[in-house]
Amino acid sequence: MTHTPLPRRSAEEQQRVEAALRELFDQRIRFNEVLGLRTVSMDPQDYRMAFDMRPDLVGHYLYGRLHGGVIAAALDAAGGNAVMLGIADRHGDETAEQVMHRFARLGTIDMRIDYLRPGLGAHFVASAVVTKLGGRVAAVQMRLVNDSGLLIATGAAAYIVS
Amino acid sequence: MTHTPLPRRSAEEQQRVEAALRELFDQRIRFNEVLGLRTVSMDPQDYRMAFDMRPDLVGHYLYGRLHGGVIAAALDAAGGNAVMLGIADRHGDETAEQVMHRFARLGTIDMRIDYLRPGLGAHFVASAVVTKLGGRVAAVQMRLVNDSGLLIATGAAAYIVS
Amino acid sequence: MTHTPLPRRSAEEQQRVEAALRELFDQRIRFNEVLGLRTVSMDPQDYRMAFDMRPDLVGHYLYGRLHGGVIAAALDAAGGNAVMLGIADRHGDETAEQVMHRFARLGTIDMRIDYLRPGLGAHFVASAVVTKLGGRVAAVQMRLVNDSGLLIATGAAAYIVS
Amino acid sequence: MTHTPLPRRSAEEQQRVEAALRELFDQRIRFNEVLGLRTVSMDPQDYRMAFDMRPDLVGHYLYGRLHGGVIAAALDAAGGNAVMLGIADRHGDETAEQVMHRFARLGTIDMRIDYLRPGLGAHFVASAVVTKLGGRVAAVQMRLVNDSGLLIATGAAAYIVS
Repeated sequence: MTHTPLPRRSAEEQQRVEAALRELFDQRIRFNEVLGLRTVSMDPQDYRMAFDMRPDLVGHYLYGRLHGGVIAAALDAAGGNAVMLGIADRHGDETAEQVMHRFARLGTIDMRIDYLRPGLGAHFVASAVVTKLGGRVAAVQMRLVNDSGLLIATGAAAYIVS
Repeated sequence: MTHTPLPRRSAEEQQRVEAALRELFDQRIRFNEVLGLRTVSMDPQDYRMAFDMRPDLVGHYLYGRLHGGVIAAALDAAGGNAVMLGIADRHGDETAEQVMHRFARLGTIDMRIDYLRPGLGAHFVASAVVTKLGGRVAAVQMRLVNDSGLLIATGAAAYIVS
Repeated sequence: MTHTPLPRRSAEEQQRVEAALRELFDQRIRFNEVLGLRTVSMDPQDYRMAFDMRPDLVGHYLYGRLHGGVIAAALDAAGGNAVMLGIADRHGDETAEQVMHRFARLGTIDMRIDYLRPGLGAHFVASAVVTKLGGRVAAVQMRLVNDSGLLIATGAAAYIVS
Repeated sequence: MTHTPLPRRSAEEQQRVEAALRELFDQRIRFNEVLGLRTVSMDPQDYRMAFDMRPDLVGHYLYGRLHGGVIAAALDAAGGNAVMLGIADRHGDETAEQVMHRFARLGTIDMRIDYLRPGLGAHFVASAVVTKLGGRVAAVQMRLVNDSGLLIATGAAAYIVS
């Protein structure tokens, strides 16, 4: 809660941090690639990932709705990434390497998903807002909307940070 | 809560119900196939699905742990299937066709996952126990263990039934 | 989702509905009175209850923070009441008596509370927004803030409706 | 997970630890007294608190069921106390004073409650089992039964420890 004003990293280093995080989010998490998740907003206050409907992401083949596990996976990914962006912002004096080390110590403690409406649509956006970024625990709220803007699911998760 | 003794379906029809449910669980849910989930126990009091570790199921490629979304998907699948087995048991006079129609009206309301330990192992078993099977809502508790018997995650979910 | 235009109840009957609901919320739920909860906004899109800090609402007597159970109780109350307001609005042709009958069939399925910051303050406001109002299940998100506007806790809950 | 064998506290000191914890659980948490919660088992593997039905613990006065917030409060209390017993056991070389200091750093991160059946009965028992006791986070599962042994509610919670 107390922030002594530290020297912020340079604009160049900030770009390195963001590039490293984006590569991490979109290319180093294997299962995220299976889902086709890709970052579409790096705003720490409104982090967003998008993905397209695909036949292998549905539950029962007759109904063509997203499997609940796909929704859970997308919201967990969006939530964890939003926390990482918050950590990178809080430790604004650290290099990209230092920030990336913090990722290794981030973990989901638990998560709740509310399935509000059938997961129908051509593509989907998972967004996340950090409601608490403490020294040990972070809390995030997530939302999944389809391409019509319909709210498909909401989520809440806690993450261990350091 | 009140069960008037209905004529149970014949042993032959019961086999048809179980075969239809097993086919549904293991072959008609597309994303379950992506995960490699397969039913290993049809006991309504202890429904179990197993799956093997595969490179595309991990989170960060360096750590080789199951992605949290894979764990959530496996526990949701096990929970929903345990409810379906309970429904098939409650409506013990119905044919396989009638039971399968009930599946279309089953949906996950919400789910919580507690991530207790890193998802490391060669294979995993997701099990589910129904704690309430009401006329409108069912509640289930789930567990994920690895091949050493280590408890990786627990879950709790509510399902709408009819 | 489909609303055939029903004759709305008269302004007089609407006042009776709101008075009956307010009395229900604030005076007929015994434990709400123990907590000192009182409705301060009847807006269905932003239902709010307020309560004051009192010594018997704290956890450990040394720290003077709200007990986690008080927070959970306040958020559950706010969430359920917001659903009732939504139901009264949806069934806009019904009399106060008919609306009140629906309350008897409302029940909390499950609830999650995230404890974000210590429950310190002179008074608190619990608010609730309905994210889904289906024919069988409703979902609500709740927030607790103190008199400085600090976000103390968030919640998510599912309710059975009819 | 790795425990170097530390000298255990003496039997006399262990009695002091247990007496201090029992006093803390039953007499220093103000709101627990409002609820009438009292410890009935100090077994770290099966911690239990009991309480009696009272008119001021009900929700709607017509139905005479426990308010959902009372259930949440009882399960949160039982869960947190079970974690404290686990911490006292893990730090088996510490004095009662040292153990009590750890309580000040314990906090509920989040909690889920599943309301399975109406909270009817003359008295109730809330029990808790620790499923994870890590260096930073603990996870607990809770149950509430009435005097007929009927399962009224289950819970899951995460706690920050140190």
